[in-house]
Amino acid sequence: MNKTTLLELLAAVQSGTITPTDATQRLADMPYEDIGHARIDHHRTLRLGLPEVIYAQGKSPQQTTEIFTRMAAAGTDVLATRADTATAALVLASFPAAVHHASARAITLKQSPPEDPKGHIAILSAGTSDQPIAEEAAVTAELFNSKVTRLYDVGVAGLHRLLSVRDQLTSADVVIVCAGMEGALPSVVGGLVGVPVIAVPTSVGYGASFDGAAALLGMLNSCSPNVTVVNIDNGFGAAYTAVLIARASARRS
Amino acid sequence: MNKTTLLELLAAVQSGTITPTDATQRLADMPYEDIGHARIDHHRTLRLGLPEVIYAQGKSPQQTTEIFTRMAAAGTDVLATRADTATAALVLASFPAAVHHASARAITLKQSPPEDPKGHIAILSAGTSDQPIAEEAAVTAELFNSKVTRLYDVGVAGLHRLLSVRDQLTSADVVIVCAGMEGALPSVVGGLVGVPVIAVPTSVGYGASFDGAAALLGMLNSCSPNVTVVNIDNGFGAAYTAVLIARASARRS
Amino acid sequence: MNKTTLLELLAAVQSGTITPTDATQRLADMPYEDIGHARIDHHRTLRLGLPEVIYAQGKSPQQTTEIFTRMAAAGTDVLATRADTATAALVLASFPAAVHHASARAITLKQSPPEDPKGHIAILSAGTSDQPIAEEAAVTAELFNSKVTRLYDVGVAGLHRLLSVRDQLTSADVVIVCAGMEGALPSVVGGLVGVPVIAVPTSVGYGASFDGAAALLGMLNSCSPNVTVVNIDNGFGAAYTAVLIARASARRS
Amino acid sequence: MNKTTLLELLAAVQSGTITPTDATQRLADMPYEDIGHARIDHHRTLRLGLPEVIYAQGKSPQQTTEIFTRMAAAGTDVLATRADTATAALVLASFPAAVHHASARAITLKQSPPEDPKGHIAILSAGTSDQPIAEEAAVTAELFNSKVTRLYDVGVAGLHRLLSVRDQLTSADVVIVCAGMEGALPSVVGGLVGVPVIAVPTSVGYGASFDGAAALLGMLNSCSPNVTVVNIDNGFGAAYTAVLIARASARRS
Amino acid sequence: MNKTTLLELLAAVQSGTITPTDATQRLADMPYEDIGHARIDHHRTLRLGLPEVIYAQGKSPQQTTEIFTRMAAAGTDVLATRADTATAALVLASFPAAVHHASARAITLKQSPPEDPKGHIAILSAGTSDQPIAEEAAVTAELFNSKVTRLYDVGVAGLHRLLSVRDQLTSADVVIVCAGMEGALPSVVGGLVGVPVIAVPTSVGYGASFDGAAALLGMLNSCSPNVTVVNIDNGFGAAYTAVLIARASARRS
Amino acid sequence: MNKTTLLELLAAVQSGTITPTDATQRLADMPYEDIGHARIDHHRTLRLGLPEVIYAQGKSPQQTTEIFTRMAAAGTDVLATRADTATAALVLASFPAAVHHASARAITLKQSPPEDPKGHIAILSAGTSDQPIAEEAAVTAELFNSKVTRLYDVGVAGLHRLLSVRDQLTSADVVIVCAGMEGALPSVVGGLVGVPVIAVPTSVGYGASFDGAAALLGMLNSCSPNVTVVNIDNGFGAAYTAVLIARASARRS
Amino acid sequence: MNKTTLLELLAAVQSGTITPTDATQRLADMPYEDIGHARIDHHRTLRLGLPEVIYAQGKSPQQTTEIFTRMAAAGTDVLATRADTATAALVLASFPAAVHHASARAITLKQSPPEDPKGHIAILSAGTSDQPIAEEAAVTAELFNSKVTRLYDVGVAGLHRLLSVRDQLTSADVVIVCAGMEGALPSVVGGLVGVPVIAVPTSVGYGASFDGAAALLGMLNSCSPNVTVVNIDNGFGAAYTAVLIARASARRS
Amino acid sequence: MNKTTLLELLAAVQSGTITPTDATQRLADMPYEDIGHARIDHHRTLRLGLPEVIYAQGKSPQQTTEIFTRMAAAGTDVLATRADTATAALVLASFPAAVHHASARAITLKQSPPEDPKGHIAILSAGTSDQPIAEEAAVTAELFNSKVTRLYDVGVAGLHRLLSVRDQLTSADVVIVCAGMEGALPSVVGGLVGVPVIAVPTSVGYGASFDGAAALLGMLNSCSPNVTVVNIDNGFGAAYTAVLIARASARRS
Repeated sequence: MNKTTLLELLAAVQSGTITPTDATQRLADMPYEDIGHARIDHHRTLRLGLPEVIYAQGKSPQQTTEIFTRMAAAGTDVLATRADTATAALVLASFPAAVHHASARAITLKQSPPEDPKGHIAILSAGTSDQPIAEEAAVTAELFNSKVTRLYDVGVAGLHRLLSVRDQLTSADVVIVCAGMEGALPSVVGGLVGVPVIAVPTSVGYGASFDGAAALLGMLNSCSPNVTVVNIDNGFGAAYTAVLIARASARRS
Repeated sequence: MNKTTLLELLAAVQSGTITPTDATQRLADMPYEDIGHARIDHHRTLRLGLPEVIYAQGKSPQQTTEIFTRMAAAGTDVLATRADTATAALVLASFPAAVHHASARAITLKQSPPEDPKGHIAILSAGTSDQPIAEEAAVTAELFNSKVTRLYDVGVAGLHRLLSVRDQLTSADVVIVCAGMEGALPSVVGGLVGVPVIAVPTSVGYGASFDGAAALLGMLNSCSPNVTVVNIDNGFGAAYTAVLIARASARRS
Repeated sequence: MNKTTLLELLAAVQSGTITPTDATQRLADMPYEDIGHARIDHHRTLRLGLPEVIYAQGKSPQQTTEIFTRMAAAGTDVLATRADTATAALVLASFPAAVHHASARAITLKQSPPEDPKGHIAILSAGTSDQPIAEEAAVTAELFNSKVTRLYDVGVAGLHRLLSVRDQLTSADVVIVCAGMEGALPSVVGGLVGVPVIAVPTSVGYGASFDGAAALLGMLNSCSPNVTVVNIDNGFGAAYTAVLIARASARRS
Repeated sequence: MNKTTLLELLAAVQSGTITPTDATQRLADMPYEDIGHARIDHHRTLRLGLPEVIYAQGKSPQQTTEIFTRMAAAGTDVLATRADTATAALVLASFPAAVHHASARAITLKQSPPEDPKGHIAILSAGTSDQPIAEEAAVTAELFNSKVTRLYDVGVAGLHRLLSVRDQLTSADVVIVCAGMEGALPSVVGGLVGVPVIAVPTSVGYGASFDGAAALLGMLNSCSPNVTVVNIDNGFGAAYTAVLIARASARRS
Repeated sequence: MNKTTLLELLAAVQSGTITPTDATQRLADMPYEDIGHARIDHHRTLRLGLPEVIYAQGKSPQQTTEIFTRMAAAGTDVLATRADTATAALVLASFPAAVHHASARAITLKQSPPEDPKGHIAILSAGTSDQPIAEEAAVTAELFNSKVTRLYDVGVAGLHRLLSVRDQLTSADVVIVCAGMEGALPSVVGGLVGVPVIAVPTSVGYGASFDGAAALLGMLNSCSPNVTVVNIDNGFGAAYTAVLIARASARRS
Repeated sequence: MNKTTLLELLAAVQSGTITPTDATQRLADMPYEDIGHARIDHHRTLRLGLPEVIYAQGKSPQQTTEIFTRMAAAGTDVLATRADTATAALVLASFPAAVHHASARAITLKQSPPEDPKGHIAILSAGTSDQPIAEEAAVTAELFNSKVTRLYDVGVAGLHRLLSVRDQLTSADVVIVCAGMEGALPSVVGGLVGVPVIAVPTSVGYGASFDGAAALLGMLNSCSPNVTVVNIDNGFGAAYTAVLIARASARRS
Repeated sequence: MNKTTLLELLAAVQSGTITPTDATQRLADMPYEDIGHARIDHHRTLRLGLPEVIYAQGKSPQQTTEIFTRMAAAGTDVLATRADTATAALVLASFPAAVHHASARAITLKQSPPEDPKGHIAILSAGTSDQPIAEEAAVTAELFNSKVTRLYDVGVAGLHRLLSVRDQLTSADVVIVCAGMEGALPSVVGGLVGVPVIAVPTSVGYGASFDGAAALLGMLNSCSPNVTVVNIDNGFGAAYTAVLIARASARRS
Repeated sequence: MNKTTLLELLAAVQSGTITPTDATQRLADMPYEDIGHARIDHHRTLRLGLPEVIYAQGKSPQQTTEIFTRMAAAGTDVLATRADTATAALVLASFPAAVHHASARAITLKQSPPEDPKGHIAILSAGTSDQPIAEEAAVTAELFNSKVTRLYDVGVAGLHRLLSVRDQLTSADVVIVCAGMEGALPSVVGGLVGVPVIAVPTSVGYGASFDGAAALLGMLNSCSPNVTVVNIDNGFGAAYTAVLIARASARRS
């Protein structure tokens, strides 16, 4: 609900088109659709630039499919993250055009017309096991129309692998780095590029990795000042912010 | 050291202008100046877009002043963060043009010619006590030529304060939010703007705030997907990344 | 065992109706029924205002049913929390009038005569996944005869959803707020109402939510002073205290 | 800003008394006074029932005194918590009628006319060292016009001390329990009274008390369901909520 | 290997009965039997007063049975803790006289001749769910010939239950207290008896109990100085020490 | 208040010597003296076998001296732990016969007539830095009339030092082991003796010792089953329990 | 990629055998084989002395087998750690000469010609349950051609077991110590030998062992200065470093 | 006490030169000198290869000087770590030949005759602030006669600094890496060298570095298998083990 809408509403009150009591009601009712177990925010793209996304974990396949259906009806692109195979099966039964990205645990439905990608995101993973999180980021960024370059298995213990992809790194508008264990990769990458680096700690590791806490702490203490951090295994969040940065950067040409 | 430089060096080797052994030496010697207790990276702006910055904490006033002097001699803008008053006094004795920002604990020396700001950063603080960290961010962003709007004491317990500055929020290219205690402000702000939000947990609080850990965890778990996080009290790091984003956004016009 | 009872007992000793040795025995035997694996506190309503409740987790269906039966025999309302479906089936086989609230994992048996609700509790959840905990609170409060208003999926990232239910919020005598992830909702609600807010951190989230610890810490550090906190996922405890407050408030008219 | 005020404002717009643009401005400007380093919320009593309170820690004596002065000018009772002696001296120099409660580290200024206390709060401390936190609670509750009964040094290792004050306990509308070390007292008290118990963990202890974390965890896991918890050493917050409960309870007669 | 044995061995060397090299060998070989995956300490009773015990968790049924068999062959009483039902079945197939204590997850084989119990141990549990740990303690103590009094479900939220068993408490030589959640019971018991209290934190609880850590911390911070603590769920260890204390106390008559 | 006293009181009620109301009062008043900031428990020796002890930390020298004076007036031995030099000076000014044990930070006043020590306690420290905690234990045990053998600087890295004092170890009725860093000494000692071992983790160490937490965890996980644990740096508590055990053991002869 | 190779490459550029652009390409391409989900580092032995190893956990049997096959094709010895039985079955189907070490969860393929072992490693385990980790270390060390002496079940609670194997200990070039629970064994061993001790905390234990964290902290705080530590359950890493040390030591003769 | 000594002692017993009782005494008395507050281990070099070292922290200047004097009298090289300036002054007053290394907080006294260094240790620090810990390592290694190469301020954010010292790195027998903040440097170095890397986490950093815990966790989770770890800020321990490795390696020529 932005200022313009508020002024229009107040102007309608002034002109008598709408009563104060009704206006109060409108302020409350307008922004979402209440379907009992959820309040769907159809105006989010208008307000925030990107549509609402379904976090499927902890929801039944039925609940996810119902929300998916309401969102699809609104005509926007739809994304469900952390979707298991049962959920994917149920959604795809209703939406044959939807795609299940198994490794990324994501379901996407592209409804917007094709257009040229806006901005370029490089997505790195330190090891093979970090790939599912990296893929969640990649699928998110591609649905939201960014160009994505995947650079996987380039961990710091074999520095030559990383240095060999340096050109691809430096051409990106923003870099996402997924790493578990000691989480050292974002610091090294941060020293190689002049763009923001979004670090995604992953729960890959054992023992004193404490399910990703070690990587998280490492990234928060990065000595490279262009590194910011998201939650453990949050590939989606990293991509969401990266898309916003990539779009801004893309406007330059 | 970017690819172009490497190719030029290799071309010089090919043309016989330089021997392989000398080239190996050049690769090692070129990028920094070794002054014993530190290796100063004068080429950083060239490589990464922004100059190296002095982290004064844990350095003696003499050490900081020496590094400051070497950097100033290179002609770039100079920034020292976490500088106490003794350090500030010593630096300003040598550099009367430098400015000591007491609340932000920062020293700046502007040497680059004035130019129009590139991009707009809104910096919020939840409470009065978060102000020093917010100021560290503001001083950093202004030295690096971003336009800064300060919006202080707008914590979530009095929501009307935040809503009253909404217009200023939504006109920014990127938002920095400094908050201690429960660290809830970034999530609320994230739901109000369509640009990246960089969250800075502060060590403000007591008891179960555990010196900022509660705010840090809150921000990492933000339900707003456009929020990324830096270390506790790291106003500088937040501003550094914000400047990169603001510059990219600024190119649009 | 309150003071009156003690005086009566001592008076009986004085009058010779009961010997000192028997009195000592009475002090020990009176307050509970020992069924081997549990000591059931039938006098709790008398002493504390609300009956004892069965925490079914970690008990076998047989054990829970046995305790349920003893309590039902005493004629009070009976509540079992954290009951799985096997337990529910066994209890309902004996008590067809009992109700199994599946989402809330609770079993209730209403035996007291119907009366007008005493006091009004608003129960909020930040997201759809927090609903089971919110329902545990709602079922508890309704059994103990409070009026309950459910306001679900009103998290802080879409502030308009919360603001649209503000009238319902401000008419409550006490508010329960269930939230996982960053746990920011109680602080925002605390700034909107002039009554106590009981915050229930939920284990909803992943990674650095550490099974609800992030939400718990956030709530303990709330900048709204009318917020108190219960254990993670403890919807029952929140409702228990809320009922006590609502009853006190209800006496005003 | 409650609904009535909003309706009045909209009605003023409808009647033409105020323009939509001015109304938008009013919504933003009305609720606080911006004095640079703080935004003072003069309407808080109207909105939330109790006035805003100054948290003096981390503020200079000058800052605290300035905010104190502005609040006093509004005619309400004024409370500053966590005030050191330097701050107290500066405030009392301007306000000779203000009182410095040294043990509680609080400054109060009573400006409202005397009236009968509303509701009764019992405040317990487990040991002598918990007394400053208990006093912070007591001073807060008394300023906000509750009757306070202090019951200090009644820890669980000498149960007879607690049992001897049971009558005073059971006559209260709400009980505050301050305890460090193992924090067991709230559970025991919770089993003796039929009213809400607000537990305040204190940082009293050493070693594995981890500055109050042990007491905090103990209280959150209380087996008495009428116990809710506030932050470590947060006597003020406990009293604030207790006052709200006591007032509601007091209306009964 | 006590001093007497060493002197005897040295005396044998002095007398020429045994060579120095053989003596060195004896020192190494004597104390245990090496069966490949374990070194069984048959002399432990001689050395330490109580026989070695099999910790079955993490061992296969075959491994446990093999060690059980070797120990039984030595004629001492045998105890295996943390034994699952498969292990119990296999052991009992070979030793029909052995007993499987299902709730305590223990297997015992009594081979020593019956004698009067030495010393008296009271074992308390705060709730029904703490019973398995309390039973592990009870089974251990009884096998090692202590008199055991079980006092279960006497948690602090219903203090009258505890007070009613006070006579039984005060007649014990040592008290074991098993409690989860806030772990408050040992402090209260410690204030009622003049003998050592051994506190066993249990993993009973949820949320901020962190699998028994809350109870553990509470017990370590007990304000009763006669409380010492063992590991979470370590009923066996508590009983082992309690038996040593009870035996010492029993010698008095 | 033991059973005998209760029966006597009830008998007095029965015989009419005392009224029920007075008896209720007696139950409450008898056990302690209320001096405002503390409730002194003069009957503790009667009830629990050992007198109450003053924990001086967090108390002013005046407060400690006042409590010390009241206790001394009752004629028992008096002990104040964690007393700084200012407190010691003030106490000794009033009680020239009191002794200040500087290393142990303890003040003792022996008033009971001399008698033969009851039982034998061996007190070990792993390193020189653990000595203050070991001394707190030693001073406590000696005041309460146990024989103490000090065995200091016998850490596990030089095992021969420990083995050389083995005879002294095995003659004790109970052993106290103070160790910081990895806290390994109690496990080793536990394997050498057939009596209870009370482990005291100390805050000696740095880095990942986390102020004694590493030693505490090590001791709780001891593979020697005769080890129980007290709080970090709690030499007093270890000695208190050790005295109880030593007394019981001493009765044998 | 070492310096010699770089000089040769630059010399080739100088002589015109290779162009600068090709040389840049060579620097990037040479060191690994990219098979999509992994980048295999065939030159690692050349560069670092030991071949790359497959960490099978988190990889599908197919992925592990594919990488195994590529590595085997390069002719080096191949090791896969943390391999489950399904993976072992699939690998052995292709490589009948490979060996599955079930307890160690490792698969080895020896392809290098037999030679005399270089250096001697003693591997200790504190208890039977630590054996799988100790075996992972042993299998690794033997594949890399070290002599291994296994000394299992020599925990500190029965010191005579450890002392009886002292000769075998002191003849090793390096010692690996695997221990869970309190992790005390490395400190004791460190005091007995004059060579490096590599400590491996294991996740053996329960309750306050926190999955090996207690043992880890204990080992990091070891009072023996010749102890270094690896991650919890990281038998492979300990052996890897031990092999490097053993080889260096072996060169002496 | 090694085996040879034991055999000689036993042989003396056999030959009647010494009685069994005296031999037992000898076993206890021989290995150390007891000076009351410490037991000095003069035979340590004989037993373990390197002399005992004084950890001065927590000792008074007098205590440290006394131990220093006893050790110096034995003729070995003497090292005191963590010595403050007062201690250094007192020691140097007695030993003018001793050296105080202020940055490293160490005091050394070289008494052994000069000889060629044995083995080569490279010591790296990530930043200027890690230098004191690196110097503690360097001073230790040099006293124990290793060749040391210092490579400071080579953190991963400016990878070219590290790569430029690669030749010096690869010529070392063992590498010590000191790093705070995210602690990423050991992983990168581990991938560049074929020798053991000993990682020393430092307490350099702020906020979520938690006094070095972040760096510690990062290093324990290193993806380079040749990395082992010591306690936070333990430069001495790292050097001690490095010296043992360097000596072994040095024997090769």
